[in-house]
Amino acid sequence: MAHTNNIDATPSAEQGGGVLPVTIAVDALGGDFAPSAVLDGVALALQRDSQLRVALCGPAEVIEPFATSSAARGRVDAHITTEEIAMDEHDPARAVRSKKDASIVVAARLVKEGAAQGFISAGSTAACLAAGTLVIGRIRGVARPTLAVVLPGKRPVVLADTGANADCKPELLVQFAEMARAYAQATLSIDNPSIALLNIGSEEGKGSELAKATQVLMKEQIHNFIGNVEGRDILDGKADVIVTDGFTGNVVLKTLEGSMFYLLAKLKTAFMATGLTKLAALVLKGSFKELKSELDPDQYGAAPLLGVKGLCLVAHGSSSPEAIANGILVGAKAVRNELTEKITAAVQAQK
Amino acid sequence: MAHTNNIDATPSAEQGGGVLPVTIAVDALGGDFAPSAVLDGVALALQRDSQLRVALCGPAEVIEPFATSSAARGRVDAHITTEEIAMDEHDPARAVRSKKDASIVVAARLVKEGAAQGFISAGSTAACLAAGTLVIGRIRGVARPTLAVVLPGKRPVVLADTGANADCKPELLVQFAEMARAYAQATLSIDNPSIALLNIGSEEGKGSELAKATQVLMKEQIHNFIGNVEGRDILDGKADVIVTDGFTGNVVLKTLEGSMFYLLAKLKTAFMATGLTKLAALVLKGSFKELKSELDPDQYGAAPLLGVKGLCLVAHGSSSPEAIANGILVGAKAVRNELTEKITAAVQAQK
Repeated sequence: MAHTNNIDATPSAEQGGGVLPVTIAVDALGGDFAPSAVLDGVALALQRDSQLRVALCGPAEVIEPFATSSAARGRVDAHITTEEIAMDEHDPARAVRSKKDASIVVAARLVKEGAAQGFISAGSTAACLAAGTLVIGRIRGVARPTLAVVLPGKRPVVLADTGANADCKPELLVQFAEMARAYAQATLSIDNPSIALLNIGSEEGKGSELAKATQVLMKEQIHNFIGNVEGRDILDGKADVIVTDGFTGNVVLKTLEGSMFYLLAKLKTAFMATGLTKLAALVLKGSFKELKSELDPDQYGAAPLLGVKGLCLVAHGSSSPEAIANGILVGAKAVRNELTEKITAAVQAQK
Repeated sequence: MAHTNNIDATPSAEQGGGVLPVTIAVDALGGDFAPSAVLDGVALALQRDSQLRVALCGPAEVIEPFATSSAARGRVDAHITTEEIAMDEHDPARAVRSKKDASIVVAARLVKEGAAQGFISAGSTAACLAAGTLVIGRIRGVARPTLAVVLPGKRPVVLADTGANADCKPELLVQFAEMARAYAQATLSIDNPSIALLNIGSEEGKGSELAKATQVLMKEQIHNFIGNVEGRDILDGKADVIVTDGFTGNVVLKTLEGSMFYLLAKLKTAFMATGLTKLAALVLKGSFKELKSELDPDQYGAAPLLGVKGLCLVAHGSSSPEAIANGILVGAKAVRNELTEKITAAVQAQK
């Protein structure tokens, strides 16, 4: 799992010359559109990165036909599993512990054992987090892994935590900042990411008790800390990394999702109003496609659980093949750019 | 200040027959576009509600010419003030205490003394909250007043708290729910508003320690409590009232603002791309105007600080004349529908 070169590259289709080979374990069963969306995503990723191998985990009847198909390009290893953790599993952590042959657990175990450098699942977020933390395990010195998300906007921004830790202490947020910084460096190719604290005022001394105490610590300990940002600054490109507790971050993420969804639905209604508006919409189709793809969170792949010994990628339950493919490719990039090593070093330096 | 009839009416222009007279005190100095936006807003409100009187507070040179103009319709009393609290005042609470002749303090004092039933200011939010709490004072039994906001969406939703209380205990959130319910009843004409808790999962038992403890209390104590809603449900019309702590609520409010602003700016760029897209945009202009007005938070007026003895309305710093007018008119409606009495009764019943 150790890589000696820091290569910053998203390999182009069928090339990958000089790019390190990476194996990503894929849970074939997770997600609303599994297994077809997952398998299509794997096929896309394999097509785009010739140095990628996939360890596909799932029931024989699902994964064997795919692994031997031309779409697999001879780079898919089938890991047959016999159990499954449902999307609405009541106690996902318990399920991860007890169902040792569930596809998501097997995928995580492959990372633990070094057979893969990362795993991705579009299954229940809670099960993914449990698999990452319980099966792969935390990096030494990491108090709590953090679930980060890359948001689209004027420029991409890494938001952490987005739900792994509903209750946080200031010290945790400082560590989230270091781990999210490493992720921005490894996947967004930003050398010196700026770090901000999500707060309810831009001035120093503002906010909840947690935010106020965190400001003080971050100012002392975090390199390139630019202070507070507010909700309205999130899409505005003011910071490369925005840190908050998992409750607030999760609410923000879903509020953004909801508002984009709402507005796009409203636009659609406006477009469909009359024959003339339909015609006008046709003219604007190109521009809108661009806008939609700019806003598309799929382009940044899945949400990484940062702080575990290997890559743990949580894909959205409704992931499209494109989202799965990007999740895998961004994951491979993170591995090639030594994300885990960077986080380990950052956490060591913190002490 | 006591009204015996529960009249639900937004009076139509120049009518107001059978509608109770209401006096709203207005801070002429607050806001980015004061005093002109404020005075224009007052003129609009007076035009639309013939039973409205305005107690206008500000420097003589600003308010006297207006009070004697035809726009004032003989229904504006000038209250000349000599001090001002700046938008960026370092310690607004202290300023409210010490500057007894500041326009916002005088406006609040008119409510305290019963000369007006409510006041509105587009000045600094912190100064408004301080004026409401320190000058007018809390309703007996209210632990902490809450700043509510009506959000546009599939149907309007009252969100509380949106920033008056960054750190909350479960009992506070339960009281916010009661006060926000009264506001929904008084201003949105919803008989039996549904109440939800903002959380990071829809199931029971989800969330932060605060959210989990609040769920239990709300389930026991809050009539028509429909459980948790998530960020993506806010604009979706799932609940009439959504309750959260002031940190999360403020972040949500500003995140929504930011995302709408971002998307509308993007649309504008798409429209301006070529001659043809400009033409298409022209065709869609009507539909977009409708959409924009539907999303326009101005239509619901200013944010009320609920739980003080009289109406305290916090207008956005960038309020347009329309926003000021709606703030005043919604405020008058709240007075006519006995908001303060409803909150008093709800808080008494809680004990």
